[in-house]
Amino acid sequence: MSIDALAVRLRAEMTPDQVLTDRQQLRTYECDGLAHYRVVPALVALPHTAAEVAAVVRACAGVGVPFVARGSGTGLSGGALPHAEGVLIVTSQLREVLSLRPADERAVVQPGVINLQVSTVSKEHGYYYAPDPSSQQICSIGGNVAENAGGAHCLKYGFTTNHVTGLEVVTPDGDLVRLGGAAPDTPGYDLLGAFVGSEGTLGVATEVTVRLTRLPETVRTLLAAFHGTDQAGAATSAIIAAGVVPAAIEMMDALSIEAAEAAVHCGYPAGAGAVLIVELDGPSAEVAAQFEEVSRLCDANGAFETRVAADDDERQLIWRGRKSAFAAVGRISPDYIVQDGVIPRTALPEVLRRIDEVASSHGVRVANVFHAGDGNLHPLVLFDAQVAGEEERAETVSGAIIDLCIEYGGSITGEHGVGVEKAHYMPRMFTDTDLDTMQLVRCAFDPGGLANPGKIFPTPRLCGERPGRRTGPHPLQESGVAEIF
Amino acid sequence: MSIDALAVRLRAEMTPDQVLTDRQQLRTYECDGLAHYRVVPALVALPHTAAEVAAVVRACAGVGVPFVARGSGTGLSGGALPHAEGVLIVTSQLREVLSLRPADERAVVQPGVINLQVSTVSKEHGYYYAPDPSSQQICSIGGNVAENAGGAHCLKYGFTTNHVTGLEVVTPDGDLVRLGGAAPDTPGYDLLGAFVGSEGTLGVATEVTVRLTRLPETVRTLLAAFHGTDQAGAATSAIIAAGVVPAAIEMMDALSIEAAEAAVHCGYPAGAGAVLIVELDGPSAEVAAQFEEVSRLCDANGAFETRVAADDDERQLIWRGRKSAFAAVGRISPDYIVQDGVIPRTALPEVLRRIDEVASSHGVRVANVFHAGDGNLHPLVLFDAQVAGEEERAETVSGAIIDLCIEYGGSITGEHGVGVEKAHYMPRMFTDTDLDTMQLVRCAFDPGGLANPGKIFPTPRLCGERPGRRTGPHPLQESGVAEIF
Repeated sequence: MSIDALAVRLRAEMTPDQVLTDRQQLRTYECDGLAHYRVVPALVALPHTAAEVAAVVRACAGVGVPFVARGSGTGLSGGALPHAEGVLIVTSQLREVLSLRPADERAVVQPGVINLQVSTVSKEHGYYYAPDPSSQQICSIGGNVAENAGGAHCLKYGFTTNHVTGLEVVTPDGDLVRLGGAAPDTPGYDLLGAFVGSEGTLGVATEVTVRLTRLPETVRTLLAAFHGTDQAGAATSAIIAAGVVPAAIEMMDALSIEAAEAAVHCGYPAGAGAVLIVELDGPSAEVAAQFEEVSRLCDANGAFETRVAADDDERQLIWRGRKSAFAAVGRISPDYIVQDGVIPRTALPEVLRRIDEVASSHGVRVANVFHAGDGNLHPLVLFDAQVAGEEERAETVSGAIIDLCIEYGGSITGEHGVGVEKAHYMPRMFTDTDLDTMQLVRCAFDPGGLANPGKIFPTPRLCGERPGRRTGPHPLQESGVAEIF
Repeated sequence: MSIDALAVRLRAEMTPDQVLTDRQQLRTYECDGLAHYRVVPALVALPHTAAEVAAVVRACAGVGVPFVARGSGTGLSGGALPHAEGVLIVTSQLREVLSLRPADERAVVQPGVINLQVSTVSKEHGYYYAPDPSSQQICSIGGNVAENAGGAHCLKYGFTTNHVTGLEVVTPDGDLVRLGGAAPDTPGYDLLGAFVGSEGTLGVATEVTVRLTRLPETVRTLLAAFHGTDQAGAATSAIIAAGVVPAAIEMMDALSIEAAEAAVHCGYPAGAGAVLIVELDGPSAEVAAQFEEVSRLCDANGAFETRVAADDDERQLIWRGRKSAFAAVGRISPDYIVQDGVIPRTALPEVLRRIDEVASSHGVRVANVFHAGDGNLHPLVLFDAQVAGEEERAETVSGAIIDLCIEYGGSITGEHGVGVEKAHYMPRMFTDTDLDTMQLVRCAFDPGGLANPGKIFPTPRLCGERPGRRTGPHPLQESGVAEIF
């Protein structure tokens, strides 16, 4: 069946305006947040219900056409990059909060519901939805599920996978199944966990049951300025080692502070080579006790100025610098790559030094803004695409940073996902047998390989084969530091 | 290949004394903690290393002989029940703590390591292993992984799945693969989560990386006596609704208090129709503040006496009654069934009343001891096997309790697993399509169906088939209360 025939069928099953085939309209969807990868889909479907999502998937499965699900399109690893001969299923029309049960600490929402909206509707009941990607004002819960989205407060509260207890999913066959439920655990295999973070390769979520978190009694935010990232990194380790689990510990280096100042005049202490933003939340008594300790540990590790937000306005001002940092880098560089990798917290100073060495040796500037508490780096590699060779050098440095993350026993992605961007790095972390085992599960769900092909795995596997034996040492063992965390 | 030939091969690959075929020796392994199901295995293998586990599995796979993994054999749902024509792989010889890295909050252990041992070796560094099944002095980490074991303190700290970050696993093909790692999240599918709780049907864990938890600064334990379970249930709901998350909230009813008194003289308040044990842990400041609130809420909900443990001895005394309760029931009844089900916390008083009605109408006594905080019931259904008809009536009541759990939107198991005992209940919670989706994953790992066959799923599936479409409403929707939690 050609795409034209598929369009006719889908227009009959839904309404004509829910099926786009006009080239100009299709171009709207040619990329997600990883904007330097662009593919125009053959058809865009805009279902309004789970049944319509299932109908679209079933139609694709019936004729062997690939399909890609997309929420708000804010992903940073190209997980929602369309397939040129495929259907893009946009779930943003499924945007109802189906039920809100604060007494049970649960909400059931459709996948197109915006992350922040869950917190907004829960607020009057004293609850919120904890995972807070920086795109939380526009990103969708469905996309969060696909990428197992994180955020600044995931240090204390965990990632999306820790806050989703149930899903309704359209499998690549077009079946509607339920994974998990409202209870914390269900009998049988935990396919819910496998689905969260599977980047659209196991099916399309059509209903998401999320855990609501009680709004903390108190939130206190502290900004500590250091002469350099070594000291700020040491302070971070000391805070965690003391048994304090802050809601967030964010670090910015000199270059990112400069960018944030230029953009939003956040007034961070002059001369700071690094700042830490430490946020504590919880019962007032606990927060007060921990706050003393955090201040003391910052001072002991070389903080030359410490500020405490006296009210919500001051708190917002402290956060404004951090939250604007990515966009602000545009003030000091026409182009940049946002990298995402993880290292053991204790290796922070050393890895930051090595990033600096690599960047210097290639004549490239790197601004570091990151979730220090869980070692999740977000180096911004700056370049000017108009200057010949700069983009290539930036890409070299960006790749070298990921190599460093692996060398120190970390991971190629902390919260942005593998998508198309990092599929080629997967063999650095996993053996062929490891990857084959994952792909066996993919084959179980999607033997035709139609659900978001080309994402996560560097090489698709033919689903009839059985895996071969592993030969040689595990890639994570070769480095000798596989278990640093 | 006959079992005899398999024995010859395995004796050559390991040492002769690692392979048991003598009937008397085999009978030692005929059951796990679900002692009324007994099957003598055809062969018992006692590997000492991961390579030996892989060799045994590969030998079984090569000749199509089923295999069952067993840790300490303390499971309560028959998950480690042997297969009469199969090999039982006992992992208790793999009992080394391979690495202990308190600064990284991780330990790497072999599957035969005893649960409590992880806490014992971590204690001097200020850490412990949080999941605490009541069998923690003898149960193995490998068995905990297979059954996703829980315990009294899982209300606050979560189940095994929340404390395992990495596994080395022998797949049913005999391959060694790594799932997860030391980091909190890894790229690709979360097969780690699917493996934990898969009851030995996806392979055998040979190395487990666990998260260590910091020992709390303070632990305070309170015993509150009520006239009945209605009041104790209401107090439980009130505590959780107030935003307090105790380390544990345990409830015992009159009959279980009677049994515990007879066995260990724990001295609970006379005339109590129910007691709550509430334990708070954390920073001293937080615990002190929350303790006031918990006491007040117990009083407000009808506690007629409240005791606070003044020191560790008093704390142990309070817990002794609770911890002895299962065994103590032997003092008041020659036989009993330990049931395990989950209901929404808010439904506790109503479900307890209905359990009482069902039990009375069948002339059966039921003692209730349970993790009230997460609605995880452990009704002990008493009978005397010597009295004709009593066992059958007890089984009827035990089954009716599970029916009630499902009716109220709960689950057929909270922490004991499905095993052989509850496989026939699975279609009450899942559609054919839901179960088929799980079994597709099983087929991906184990197309020959050799890994612990007969557990979890009521009907094995032929691995060549694709699943059919779901027809009719989802079983959890028929009740109209699918989303109570």
